[in-house]
Amino acid sequence: MKPKIKVSIVGGSGYTGIELLRLLISHPNVIIDQITSRNDSGKLVSAIYPSLRGTLSNVFVDPAEANLKESELVFFATPNGIAMNYVQELLDNGVKVIDLAADFRIKNVSIWEKWYGMKHQAAEELKKAVYGLPEVNRAAIKEAQLVANPGCYPTAIQLALAPLIKSNLINTETIIADAKSGISGAGKKTETQLLMSEASENFRAYGLTGHRHLPEIEENLQAITGQKKIRLTFVPHLIPMVRGIHATLYVDCIQDFDPLIIFNECYKDEPFIDILEPGSCPETKSVRGSNICRLSFYKIPDSNRLIILSVIDNLVKGAAGQAIQNMNIMMDWPENTGLDLLALHP
Amino acid sequence: MKPKIKVSIVGGSGYTGIELLRLLISHPNVIIDQITSRNDSGKLVSAIYPSLRGTLSNVFVDPAEANLKESELVFFATPNGIAMNYVQELLDNGVKVIDLAADFRIKNVSIWEKWYGMKHQAAEELKKAVYGLPEVNRAAIKEAQLVANPGCYPTAIQLALAPLIKSNLINTETIIADAKSGISGAGKKTETQLLMSEASENFRAYGLTGHRHLPEIEENLQAITGQKKIRLTFVPHLIPMVRGIHATLYVDCIQDFDPLIIFNECYKDEPFIDILEPGSCPETKSVRGSNICRLSFYKIPDSNRLIILSVIDNLVKGAAGQAIQNMNIMMDWPENTGLDLLALHP
Amino acid sequence: MKPKIKVSIVGGSGYTGIELLRLLISHPNVIIDQITSRNDSGKLVSAIYPSLRGTLSNVFVDPAEANLKESELVFFATPNGIAMNYVQELLDNGVKVIDLAADFRIKNVSIWEKWYGMKHQAAEELKKAVYGLPEVNRAAIKEAQLVANPGCYPTAIQLALAPLIKSNLINTETIIADAKSGISGAGKKTETQLLMSEASENFRAYGLTGHRHLPEIEENLQAITGQKKIRLTFVPHLIPMVRGIHATLYVDCIQDFDPLIIFNECYKDEPFIDILEPGSCPETKSVRGSNICRLSFYKIPDSNRLIILSVIDNLVKGAAGQAIQNMNIMMDWPENTGLDLLALHP
Amino acid sequence: MKPKIKVSIVGGSGYTGIELLRLLISHPNVIIDQITSRNDSGKLVSAIYPSLRGTLSNVFVDPAEANLKESELVFFATPNGIAMNYVQELLDNGVKVIDLAADFRIKNVSIWEKWYGMKHQAAEELKKAVYGLPEVNRAAIKEAQLVANPGCYPTAIQLALAPLIKSNLINTETIIADAKSGISGAGKKTETQLLMSEASENFRAYGLTGHRHLPEIEENLQAITGQKKIRLTFVPHLIPMVRGIHATLYVDCIQDFDPLIIFNECYKDEPFIDILEPGSCPETKSVRGSNICRLSFYKIPDSNRLIILSVIDNLVKGAAGQAIQNMNIMMDWPENTGLDLLALHP
Repeated sequence: MKPKIKVSIVGGSGYTGIELLRLLISHPNVIIDQITSRNDSGKLVSAIYPSLRGTLSNVFVDPAEANLKESELVFFATPNGIAMNYVQELLDNGVKVIDLAADFRIKNVSIWEKWYGMKHQAAEELKKAVYGLPEVNRAAIKEAQLVANPGCYPTAIQLALAPLIKSNLINTETIIADAKSGISGAGKKTETQLLMSEASENFRAYGLTGHRHLPEIEENLQAITGQKKIRLTFVPHLIPMVRGIHATLYVDCIQDFDPLIIFNECYKDEPFIDILEPGSCPETKSVRGSNICRLSFYKIPDSNRLIILSVIDNLVKGAAGQAIQNMNIMMDWPENTGLDLLALHP
Repeated sequence: MKPKIKVSIVGGSGYTGIELLRLLISHPNVIIDQITSRNDSGKLVSAIYPSLRGTLSNVFVDPAEANLKESELVFFATPNGIAMNYVQELLDNGVKVIDLAADFRIKNVSIWEKWYGMKHQAAEELKKAVYGLPEVNRAAIKEAQLVANPGCYPTAIQLALAPLIKSNLINTETIIADAKSGISGAGKKTETQLLMSEASENFRAYGLTGHRHLPEIEENLQAITGQKKIRLTFVPHLIPMVRGIHATLYVDCIQDFDPLIIFNECYKDEPFIDILEPGSCPETKSVRGSNICRLSFYKIPDSNRLIILSVIDNLVKGAAGQAIQNMNIMMDWPENTGLDLLALHP
Repeated sequence: MKPKIKVSIVGGSGYTGIELLRLLISHPNVIIDQITSRNDSGKLVSAIYPSLRGTLSNVFVDPAEANLKESELVFFATPNGIAMNYVQELLDNGVKVIDLAADFRIKNVSIWEKWYGMKHQAAEELKKAVYGLPEVNRAAIKEAQLVANPGCYPTAIQLALAPLIKSNLINTETIIADAKSGISGAGKKTETQLLMSEASENFRAYGLTGHRHLPEIEENLQAITGQKKIRLTFVPHLIPMVRGIHATLYVDCIQDFDPLIIFNECYKDEPFIDILEPGSCPETKSVRGSNICRLSFYKIPDSNRLIILSVIDNLVKGAAGQAIQNMNIMMDWPENTGLDLLALHP
Repeated sequence: MKPKIKVSIVGGSGYTGIELLRLLISHPNVIIDQITSRNDSGKLVSAIYPSLRGTLSNVFVDPAEANLKESELVFFATPNGIAMNYVQELLDNGVKVIDLAADFRIKNVSIWEKWYGMKHQAAEELKKAVYGLPEVNRAAIKEAQLVANPGCYPTAIQLALAPLIKSNLINTETIIADAKSGISGAGKKTETQLLMSEASENFRAYGLTGHRHLPEIEENLQAITGQKKIRLTFVPHLIPMVRGIHATLYVDCIQDFDPLIIFNECYKDEPFIDILEPGSCPETKSVRGSNICRLSFYKIPDSNRLIILSVIDNLVKGAAGQAIQNMNIMMDWPENTGLDLLALHP
């Protein structure tokens, strides 16, 4: 048996942080070394997250005092714009890095800077970064030292579209992604609109005039096609629940084909993709707590329009679970190590 | 002061029934005469709905024993396929009828029979029925003796599209309606999927392969255009909350125009339509319990695509409130009589 | 017809503020004059609360610039410790005041200062203040110029206990009040624990070691008995929903009596108290949005233990609705003016 | 490595059934043999519970066709009154049985028959049955062939009271248990009151005049004391959420003692009991999906009253998790085998 590796988490007090902890505690190949938090340093992690009491004795470390270089791999579960300041030193010291924020998701620096409103501090490292969507990029992830973990919406949407775009089956400029997310996707921020009194028993769109996940999706789908232009209409909505993303995709087919064959062929060896019978409707609850992406579709009769439905748990396949999947690939471990999670129903 | 009129409700024990009661109890011009229920006949209405205790002394009457002809107006809050068996006798006796179910929403009998899976029993009355969407059909409603109250999705969707279709501004064959409804839209049925353990903390589409509201929307929008063909892709979803519909519409513009001018002009005198600033996002909670439809839109830059957002309370503007609005028009009362309802927030 | 009176609201941007607005907009005898807000001054009230769009044109006024003396009655929907600084000047100018916060709920200044952690600034006015629980204090409220609107838990709990205590039927030192509140009771505060991600699908007690409503309940129940000591064990809990309080009271009877007779006799003329059949269980949803307190009880066989259940909407009978009930009494209007609100079901 | 044992589930289509499956699928020592269901026989289990797709290929078997004797252990996740008809034959064939329903929870047959409204069919087996609360009965469970898995409320309540009763520290005739449960505790029954439209945004007590869990609690606590009479006032309430029980216990102390010492001493070796700091408040969400019971307490100053708070997940420690804990004990496996479940937060 190989010895376990040390991993650390920067920014462990948010929701992707605690979800990483939930999964890493049960992962057989890792030891959780340091967990940093600016606000909660000095406190027991399990004092902030009582669900971890009895399983984790770590104390939050101030980021300034953390010694991350001793870890073999570091996860950044920080806000956007943090990881880019740390990454060069870590990479230089041979540490692997998985950034769960957006710093390395878009290769085009000027687009990134426009959407994220800050100067990019690690343009050189950005070139080396690999976009960590295993079902599309597995080979590159295997060799990567720096992985940009995809956003939650981009994961659900790209897994629905990749097989069709790869095979050049749809018009790539008329795609519509009507996406809906549970409120944990907004993180543990104390904003009025995230209060239970406001968000429960309520439904609304947001970011109608532009959402940061749009350029991420467009650039990374473009990388699949090679040349064709991608144009997406993307409207996110907030669901009055905690976990889950449901993306409803509307595309125009440019060929006649059987989507079931295309999807089954493309994903036949994927451990975390589940294709349902055409016309059926996947539920977010069926993936809650698991790393599965469940897909379905329906071709409208006498029309070239195809509808694809895609559900994931935004904190698992849309964040922490996918990060661990990426770690498993980078470390050459079986991809499902520590990820055989069953959804919690009801 | 004119004397109050007598109204009755057939099928008063479901959710549209109790919502009608909530509104009629406060309506200054009506006396609630008979309330029928097959299952609960003989019981106090307020024993089934304790929220009405102290305000209503009516007992549920068996439909077979009800004397509906004594009422000036009868609401049917029954399942589909009931009202069509009663309507002829009522109309013959000079009683006005508003059907909150689907029996008279579609003029084309063969399409109706295909979608509702039964033979239509009142084809003659169907010809006289007026589709009760006041913002589109007010003049005809004023003269009608039989009004077909629109479905909840069709109300939210048609109010979003009517101004654009009237002015011939969009491609009517590529419309997409991604619609979401709170669970009360499914009624008070004891089905597994409507249990709180199943439906809460869950989101899913349904009726992907076809929903009865689609032909209703298509036929009634077609009536607006006169000749152009309407083709809609309609995907309904279930939101883990009780009240509210949110429709997200995607249309392709065939002219250059300012949607704000079009919507404001079309709806400038409407008491129950509220147009928000372009790019903003209406919340279902802002209309919960009220008869308002709140609309917003956003034109995607460098594109002919327009997004329209529409929210209503499915039980009020999508059912009971709209029925009372129709009654007010039919009776020549001020249209907002009994409908100055403020939404419940939070 | 008498002319309408002007009323103002200090601190109109919180949940009791918006609920006051919802009710005052429909109240036939008042004109809403000024609505102050420190954070939102200069903004349209309906921009913060879209549910009020189209019904209210007021702009939030900075408290420093408000001219409250022009109002006949001023509501304070402020945090604790604000009203006490304004009240003297208002009373001196003949303005009536209803404080929805805690400044005047407890007569014993040292107990108040201990629990609220600040010095009381209006000890003289405190002596004149009347505790605004109409079912107990109606005569005094009629004559009052300054009314302390009771807290939400105290309202639910005292209405359950008052008939028993008045008639000296229970041991007043062994009372247990196990109370549960929807999250709107905590107000519109951006605290982590009030986020939907934390509070939904969760249940917990809080304030186990002491809650400010305890001395309020004890002092005001004591006022009823005249001499007997009141001792209450009070444990509040947070329910994963927005509106509603459910109090479960456990008392030891010191006499043999029929609770139904006692409750019916005590509350027979009360417009907002509804006594259910013994052994039945009132639902918070049956009072959501209404000013009703619904009560039930059950005497355990072969025991002197009596259980009383009490439900209210914390924002209505527990705050804004009761404030308006108090205004109606102070103004000598019918007590239910503007308060014939039906609960929203489902 | 020892070979895995075969286990079967009778009545696998309800919520305790699917929760057993979630846990057994990950249990290293078992093979899931047969899963019976009257209604769903012939269907894939994963067709009814899509969350299990890809992990379980079993088809529901009709109970009449099941061969349960081939299993080493059979779980009954059936309604009350089923297991008692099967148990003799299974025991005679050397099969171990764990009944998650109520058939063997109460030794006193006449009390059982009174509360469950049917004749007991296995009075002989009932004598051999062991009440499966491991923290109280571990030694007997080890030797048992038939285990009665405790009810969900009784688990939360007895774990809170057992240390105090064992040490004779409280008055056993004045105990109050104010208990609250998520709606999954009512099972997957299609009843109106369990619909999301009814149960969400609502809170109420039920079973005020008597609940079947009361005699179970009283008899089994009595077994601990040996002689003292137990008398409990038990009021269950329904929380608008899916999983979780919160019990708030009020007891009168008859001695002076430090509860922290008592609880820590009693539970110091227990893998699934977590004692919080006195005065703190455990959250149901902190145990959601896990087998933990989290306890806290607070002694009211200048009083002999002690409050104890107890939270569990009703489907795990209150049902399926405890059943597996009992299996582990019966099979002499480490007690936490397959039960190192971390709660899902948020």
